[in-house]
Amino acid sequence: MREKILVFDTTLRDGEQSPGASLNVQEKVEIARQLEKLGVDVIEAGFPASSPLQLEAVQRICSESHTVIAALARAVENDITAAWKALKDALKPRIHTFISTSDIHILGKFGSDRYGASLQEKQGTVLQMAVDAVKFAKTFTPDVEFSAEDAGRTDPGYLAEIISAVIDAGATTVNIPDTTGYTWPSEFGEKIARLVAGVPNISKAVISVHCHNDLGLAVANSLSAVERGARQIECAMNGIGERAGNASLEEIVMALKVRSDLHNFRTGIVTEEIYNTSRMVSAFTGMIIQPNKAIVGDNAFSHESGIHQDGMLKSRETYEVMTPESVGVPQTNIVLGRHSGKHGLQARLAALGYKLGDQELETVYRRFLDIADKKKEVYDDDLRVLMGDEMSRPGGTYLLDYMHINSGTASIPTATVRIKHDSQVYEESATGDGPVDACFRAIERALGIESMVSTYTVRSATAGRQALGEALVRIRDGNISFNGRGVSTDVIEASAKAYLQALGLRRLHFQNSTTETITDNGV
Amino acid sequence: MREKILVFDTTLRDGEQSPGASLNVQEKVEIARQLEKLGVDVIEAGFPASSPLQLEAVQRICSESHTVIAALARAVENDITAAWKALKDALKPRIHTFISTSDIHILGKFGSDRYGASLQEKQGTVLQMAVDAVKFAKTFTPDVEFSAEDAGRTDPGYLAEIISAVIDAGATTVNIPDTTGYTWPSEFGEKIARLVAGVPNISKAVISVHCHNDLGLAVANSLSAVERGARQIECAMNGIGERAGNASLEEIVMALKVRSDLHNFRTGIVTEEIYNTSRMVSAFTGMIIQPNKAIVGDNAFSHESGIHQDGMLKSRETYEVMTPESVGVPQTNIVLGRHSGKHGLQARLAALGYKLGDQELETVYRRFLDIADKKKEVYDDDLRVLMGDEMSRPGGTYLLDYMHINSGTASIPTATVRIKHDSQVYEESATGDGPVDACFRAIERALGIESMVSTYTVRSATAGRQALGEALVRIRDGNISFNGRGVSTDVIEASAKAYLQALGLRRLHFQNSTTETITDNGV
Repeated sequence: MREKILVFDTTLRDGEQSPGASLNVQEKVEIARQLEKLGVDVIEAGFPASSPLQLEAVQRICSESHTVIAALARAVENDITAAWKALKDALKPRIHTFISTSDIHILGKFGSDRYGASLQEKQGTVLQMAVDAVKFAKTFTPDVEFSAEDAGRTDPGYLAEIISAVIDAGATTVNIPDTTGYTWPSEFGEKIARLVAGVPNISKAVISVHCHNDLGLAVANSLSAVERGARQIECAMNGIGERAGNASLEEIVMALKVRSDLHNFRTGIVTEEIYNTSRMVSAFTGMIIQPNKAIVGDNAFSHESGIHQDGMLKSRETYEVMTPESVGVPQTNIVLGRHSGKHGLQARLAALGYKLGDQELETVYRRFLDIADKKKEVYDDDLRVLMGDEMSRPGGTYLLDYMHINSGTASIPTATVRIKHDSQVYEESATGDGPVDACFRAIERALGIESMVSTYTVRSATAGRQALGEALVRIRDGNISFNGRGVSTDVIEASAKAYLQALGLRRLHFQNSTTETITDNGV
Repeated sequence: MREKILVFDTTLRDGEQSPGASLNVQEKVEIARQLEKLGVDVIEAGFPASSPLQLEAVQRICSESHTVIAALARAVENDITAAWKALKDALKPRIHTFISTSDIHILGKFGSDRYGASLQEKQGTVLQMAVDAVKFAKTFTPDVEFSAEDAGRTDPGYLAEIISAVIDAGATTVNIPDTTGYTWPSEFGEKIARLVAGVPNISKAVISVHCHNDLGLAVANSLSAVERGARQIECAMNGIGERAGNASLEEIVMALKVRSDLHNFRTGIVTEEIYNTSRMVSAFTGMIIQPNKAIVGDNAFSHESGIHQDGMLKSRETYEVMTPESVGVPQTNIVLGRHSGKHGLQARLAALGYKLGDQELETVYRRFLDIADKKKEVYDDDLRVLMGDEMSRPGGTYLLDYMHINSGTASIPTATVRIKHDSQVYEESATGDGPVDACFRAIERALGIESMVSTYTVRSATAGRQALGEALVRIRDGNISFNGRGVSTDVIEASAKAYLQALGLRRLHFQNSTTETITDNGV
């Protein structure tokens, strides 16, 4: 009987911390549903103390999930209380508390003398804070995880000491993060082996690892740790996360599965759901997947050169160590059209992992018909992009009621827009350097604002000449960013919608702003 | 004194085999120049027997390079002769010959009885072919590399035998490719250690590794091999290549550099040229880099969450194991405008790695002025995209002389185009599902052709609201694909240009077609 390696998914927490990847509550709920279908063992749903929206998202996920839900908290009472507030309706709540343990982090974050005069004194304070945090968390739930932030660069003796102390305090999972993606596989495996050998009470907790990919080694480090005693891996779909991201869930799971001849482990992942999950996360976060990404990239199972195609005809195994079917890559494209009907649409969306209420379905169906009118053939990727667009739309913001552009090589690009908001109508026109610029200027004139676009990207989100264009606009107001997303068969319309959405989110934010700023939220 | 690890770059060979990444001769020459500046030890420039264009590209690179230039050849006389034809003007030519050695590959490719009745007999034939190929290659150059294709899945005893035999035959480098990306780091390192221990004449050759990334382990496997005796690493910029690609050059180099405390190795790479090289390869191949890509992704050095930004203010080291400067990420954006002048442009292009002749500079300068008129501020990324667009333009094809579009939420998208070709002028208009579709239909009508678009993608290639839009169109005619690329501040114009370029390449191809098809070209 193979031993199970627990898969702790942090797509919704560390993954969402990817610059530009912020998710709204509804998107998080949808992703959590899909992660449950994927069979992950723990869903880290957010960091409740960091913002009211994070707290709400964790609450919503807890209200419907059967999986262990983890919420992050610094090793301070306020954070742990907020985490519990978010988790209390969960069937299986886990509080995940952390504190920095490397010299460089301790000196950087606990520099003040009130944490102790010397590094050694500060280490003592940090250890006590960790123990107190675990004990406090235990008053709410028996399932408490402790993370030693920057364990990859932490002194081994001190690491063993703090891990032993938090286990005595009741931690049931002890996580060893390589926060800065600094270690090599042999070194990181050794680090785990030393804990197994040197921490007397280690068998009372599950050893977890959380590897970052700054040197491209996160997956290998995680596997090396499993070979030496770790039994939980923290990872994110598509490897998203801070900077170069976390270990890719799909790579870890498939490396374990494809090479089950090398070890005696298994995971509980339904690998056939990998592709759907990957595409949903990419559509919602706007984090593109490069074609040469392992397992889930567009080229992962394609073969360009003559030899490979020739070899493939003889035997897939010649150049493939796994089949596309095993990770759920669809082998035939199922196409919907305007005659597919509402039930056809609902069934297809369900197969792709989207569960909709009646009213949501009604809205999505109406948009589906719009697209089907223009595209005739509606593919899975079209539906994913449509869902991403629908989910990201907050109520009560600006509506693009009319848009017209006139553009070309010999004319000055000109745009006219009509925007509705509450009961008001704004109309304006403007010229610009290209049709998108003209459109943005017309919007700015209509709403009487200065330009605030800090990032603008456009991409074809689906294949073919009638591809859906997806535009992402980020605007910045002081220190705060707002992202807007727009989708249309017309890239200019998509761009205008994205800008309006970002502006609408900004408006909502300043209407009912209660967001506090947090200065500490990594692992 | 640290021991040098040779960096063998296969961006132009295996990298170019990425589906959709084909490069023309001029683009390959530019990339080779930049690779030389980057300080790679070997440039694998192509596979001359596979097509006349491949042969020409290798010849052109050889004519101006001071680095070792390798050309790939199957273990057959024709291929080796073609490789030598391409390499003969090189200062330091290397013939790289390969044959499959795993059971699954041997049975798949040498199934016919003429290679032997049993697997064992076939293995004997393959070994003899390998020895003959190396001996034949040695008649042209002393620098001969042999690759045992699919070594990752090859029987260790047979692998040792064939490696020993080719070294006796004169191979100076023996490459152990994990062709299908199947191995784990500990396993792959062990494989190298067994060769070091078990092949008596192994010290007469350099051991090389070539790892694919199907399970996300290519970089870790390469490093593990170095720890156990390999002294050359084959890799590609941005990790491009067949399927999930090759080991990423930048990850291997930086992992070795950042963790020089773990070992006694060094590379000759000028790491400050990594960013320029990465961006050039991405612009020319159209292979996008995901934001969470290690070292070269847009997020690799960015910090979204409060804690990280806070930590960074205290000390970069808190969350960064290397500085962006160390890999050449520009810290300030140098901006050009229309008053920068031709010399200003030339100097900036040179800093980015582009070396232009007088006439090329003249053409590029004219396009730069066009863009500067529209964009006002021209960034490095704009220049990179412009260069990519210029390089990919073949002579004598279709010119978009005029284009006009009329589109919006309440009107039927309509496009009018005028195309010039030789002395002829074609004008047409059409409606479509969106402005791009309308434009494509107008082009098809004007040229009297059916739609042939198989893939269409558009993306903003540079940042900001006045981003340059880049469109890629792939058309398919029977088994052959043609890629077109277009760049403009107007995404619709970029799309029309891309389609026309693809159609032009198709026309050129059928005018002077001499391309043969090759059925074997992997490692």
